[in-house]
Amino acid sequence: MPRLICPLLLLLQTSLGSRIPPPAVPQTVLVTGGVGYIGSHTVLELLSAGHEVVVVDNLCNSNLECLRRVQELAGRDVAFHEVDLRDADALSAVFAQHKPTAVVHFAGLKAVGESVAEPLLYYQVNVQGTLNLVQAMLQQGCTDLVFSSSATVYGDPASVPVDESFPAGRCTNPYGFSKFFIEQILRDVSTANPQLNVALLRYFNPVGAHPSGRIGEDPQGIPNNLMPFLQQVAVGKRPRLSVFGDDYPTADGTGVRDYIHVVDLAKGHTAALLRLQQGSGCVTYNLGTGVGYSVLDMVRAFSAACGHDLPYEIAPRRPGDVAVVYSDASLAAAELGWKAELGLEEMCSDTWRWISANPNGFSSS
Amino acid sequence: MPRLICPLLLLLQTSLGSRIPPPAVPQTVLVTGGVGYIGSHTVLELLSAGHEVVVVDNLCNSNLECLRRVQELAGRDVAFHEVDLRDADALSAVFAQHKPTAVVHFAGLKAVGESVAEPLLYYQVNVQGTLNLVQAMLQQGCTDLVFSSSATVYGDPASVPVDESFPAGRCTNPYGFSKFFIEQILRDVSTANPQLNVALLRYFNPVGAHPSGRIGEDPQGIPNNLMPFLQQVAVGKRPRLSVFGDDYPTADGTGVRDYIHVVDLAKGHTAALLRLQQGSGCVTYNLGTGVGYSVLDMVRAFSAACGHDLPYEIAPRRPGDVAVVYSDASLAAAELGWKAELGLEEMCSDTWRWISANPNGFSSS
Repeated sequence: MPRLICPLLLLLQTSLGSRIPPPAVPQTVLVTGGVGYIGSHTVLELLSAGHEVVVVDNLCNSNLECLRRVQELAGRDVAFHEVDLRDADALSAVFAQHKPTAVVHFAGLKAVGESVAEPLLYYQVNVQGTLNLVQAMLQQGCTDLVFSSSATVYGDPASVPVDESFPAGRCTNPYGFSKFFIEQILRDVSTANPQLNVALLRYFNPVGAHPSGRIGEDPQGIPNNLMPFLQQVAVGKRPRLSVFGDDYPTADGTGVRDYIHVVDLAKGHTAALLRLQQGSGCVTYNLGTGVGYSVLDMVRAFSAACGHDLPYEIAPRRPGDVAVVYSDASLAAAELGWKAELGLEEMCSDTWRWISANPNGFSSS
Repeated sequence: MPRLICPLLLLLQTSLGSRIPPPAVPQTVLVTGGVGYIGSHTVLELLSAGHEVVVVDNLCNSNLECLRRVQELAGRDVAFHEVDLRDADALSAVFAQHKPTAVVHFAGLKAVGESVAEPLLYYQVNVQGTLNLVQAMLQQGCTDLVFSSSATVYGDPASVPVDESFPAGRCTNPYGFSKFFIEQILRDVSTANPQLNVALLRYFNPVGAHPSGRIGEDPQGIPNNLMPFLQQVAVGKRPRLSVFGDDYPTADGTGVRDYIHVVDLAKGHTAALLRLQQGSGCVTYNLGTGVGYSVLDMVRAFSAACGHDLPYEIAPRRPGDVAVVYSDASLAAAELGWKAELGLEEMCSDTWRWISANPNGFSSS
């Protein structure tokens, strides 16, 4: 008996590996935290894919100049509401006004160290904010939700690459636990409400910027992560990078991570939305490249992109850091027709284009 | 060199095993869910130990007649506020009015099956309610919190008896996850705020009633648990007990649990409050007897207490039920000077005294 091939699947398979977004049915998509780093790149992809976008953001760690540039790049407008997800009434009003059919949920606090110092705040913003969001969705009959989770839910994995069946929840800080809790809450709510489709996207290490150089990562204060720190060293805002530990059991002794270009990551969200439109229930995907680079690999690659050597010093290991984490991203390839396509060189050259043109981030304009 | 013995420890050790509560410094204790089954028995113990008590309850699963009887038994009054913990402003107002120095936190939804059907409600009431409570405590400088957790956080333990070092979080339903999440949140908040002392009390299976027969368990609807169901069979409100599974690897094939008398459990809370007054940080204790009884053991014991055989039928296993769970309760004995003292006979005779005098629970008066 010949194997039947569904035309839609064929179309998906054809698009696999291309940079053309899959053909989603245009809808009104509410993006929480849509003015932030990953949020803004995703809003741009959603606009390119033909969706209407409504952005909700409390602007606690973002700048409206970013959203202005997104609209400029897309040549289209976005509705914006300055709302904190802890304000259930204000959030419900946005749902009532725009009647979104899907939500991409980025809003949340994300600094590991701050989460240890201010756990109540982290649980209120991240967990309580998500409870309010889900309540507003159920009240308005909004059925599709993409959630910004993290590989942090795997903690220190027993082996690499890490696939979605690895145990989650061995977190080492309140930020990580908040992601794990939200995943479980969304899984349970989707089970009880089968009309609710949820994609839990576990990001590995997002880096890079839009190739236009107009939007990119703009952290407030001292950056927690490697690439924003390197950015600041590259433009002379910080004297040198601290490399936390050079005695890990890796090729050069520094920690190995799975860095993924933020534009690839953003495309993963449009692919996930399409999967939800097919009535997925609750699904979980790693979004990574499947390739691990060490800290020193990144320093060399970014030095090459910016044209000068970036100074660094070796510092002690940080508590909670693990030696090697990288993804098995094959499930997203098989089920979403998505895979990361941009390599280390684009990650670094796009970051350099962004930061060299905007050394003060969005505050420079 | 002779071993130095601290007089306070000696006093504690002397009181170990007696039924005299340890000498706590009297304080104003706010009890959430204080009109419920375990809450009301604990309020009575707190009053007996000389504390002032303020009860907060939304009365969604409790009856003020219970609190009236508690006051009658104690010969003392209790302040009462009908407040839902999801209402942060109303809760703050209670703290501002009474300025409690300690909280015993029972309020929460607890029906496993309902939590599967209504997970959002469970996470809102249990988790969001606790976040509001902790915020009110930190705002008012209230430093001591006893939390009503559950052995359910152990899931299906790898062996028995279960001690506090066993891994938690392998829960099988949203009710269980809500308890696990709250434990982690409180642990994190206590770490960040060292002045906050927290006791996470993991109850095994509370049964029994106050020996006066005036207060006891009064579940609404079809009971989820064995003893309230047996109560209703004993007074003729239900024709027979369903025993879920008789093919477990136990002596008689039925599930084995660690039943603990509610009066013992209540005394565990006054003991925990004393420990918190000593500046404990975050501590975790099993509250159980350390003895396991099968379902059929309980049927026989309760039949003896009420003077006639209670009919039962064997039904299929319930999903999520495990074969054998009982506690290692030695940590609470060592650190709280507390251990359960009432046996199976008292559990059954006190339950029978309560239900035979109040076949309709608190609605009969």
